[in-house]
Amino acid sequence: MSTTATFYHAGCPVCVAAEQKIAESLDTNRYDVEIVHLGEAKERIGEAEAAGIISVPALVIDGQAFHINHGADLTDLK
Amino acid sequence: MSTTATFYHAGCPVCVAAEQKIAESLDTNRYDVEIVHLGEAKERIGEAEAAGIISVPALVIDGQAFHINHGADLTDLK
Repeated sequence: MSTTATFYHAGCPVCVAAEQKIAESLDTNRYDVEIVHLGEAKERIGEAEAAGIISVPALVIDGQAFHINHGADLTDLK
Repeated sequence: MSTTATFYHAGCPVCVAAEQKIAESLDTNRYDVEIVHLGEAKERIGEAEAAGIISVPALVIDGQAFHINHGADLTDLK
């Protein structure tokens, strides 16, 4: 059974690098990777905040938030 | 052909979480994941710095450094 891993980003260069090298490198046999562009899907910023995310790019796996380098603060996306 | 992905850490709780959720979630068909404890292998701190790492936990994939949350600065491990 696959678990959902959610990658949140804002289209920034730092975000794209993290998406290509980390989000897309996860084992798809174990994870369904969902990519969410918070600049376009602003209605999901609240969900990201609730998961503990304060900046993007970030990856939420099994309820844990991992900030990967730093592209933009969530507060700047609102 | 597999590429080496190197995960650098220092044994801290933040590092362990990143190791279990991200380093161990990479697709092992594409990546040989090496785990390096810089507190024990201090001789490899220079290599981590050269890859652009300034704090752990961090993952280097295809020559790019990704800092994952923040456990400890590299300067504190010397």
